[in-house]
Amino acid sequence: MSNQKTVLDVEDVTVGGGCCAPLVAAPLNAEQAVDLSKAFKALGDPVRLRLLSLITSAESETCVCDLSAAFDLTGPTISHHLKVLREAGLIDSERRGTWVYYWPRPENLSRLSTLLATPRLAPA
Amino acid sequence: MSNQKTVLDVEDVTVGGGCCAPLVAAPLNAEQAVDLSKAFKALGDPVRLRLLSLITSAESETCVCDLSAAFDLTGPTISHHLKVLREAGLIDSERRGTWVYYWPRPENLSRLSTLLATPRLAPA
Repeated sequence: MSNQKTVLDVEDVTVGGGCCAPLVAAPLNAEQAVDLSKAFKALGDPVRLRLLSLITSAESETCVCDLSAAFDLTGPTISHHLKVLREAGLIDSERRGTWVYYWPRPENLSRLSTLLATPRLAPA
Repeated sequence: MSNQKTVLDVEDVTVGGGCCAPLVAAPLNAEQAVDLSKAFKALGDPVRLRLLSLITSAESETCVCDLSAAFDLTGPTISHHLKVLREAGLIDSERRGTWVYYWPRPENLSRLSTLLATPRLAPA
């Protein structure tokens, strides 16, 4: 398992004292916005979003061999997108023998989810 | 108010039959991923994320004059970023006299929030 710190692990990515309170609670400062924008940028690509959805919706860890089979892309391209997701703190991975296996990091996905939640705003 | 359709208004941005069910529910198809990635790409910039947080955390509609005052950026640059957020369906706007006023679109923010929610995954 990777123990690298990612942008979402940085302790000062907090709003109003609690990590990643909804945007409705208080404006982000510049530093928070820089860190969080990296995670959203990682999500801002259709291949990465599909990779994340495959990994997150799987019952257990997902082999890179199965992920590659779902796309008409080269192995290095898939690996690049997986690296971006891992560095953003959205997934983690471990090599076992020939293959690398991936799983989601729900604590960080939840942080982004909470950030975009709009509890005090009624839908238009 | 703008009546333009945005990527998040497209009706087929649905997962498992309901709009924007969590990623944990089912993998996104290619078309869904393309549409949703545009919204996340709009969030993948620190200035846009701060603009959105200012608009979303405000008690009422936010004048572009107040938004511009919060950044050391030119008016056209701020306007460009606001346009990206509006085209992504995250905010809406209306011109009244000299100024344009902005407000959040909570229904679309909630869709993205729900997409990233991880109800069946225990935090690591």
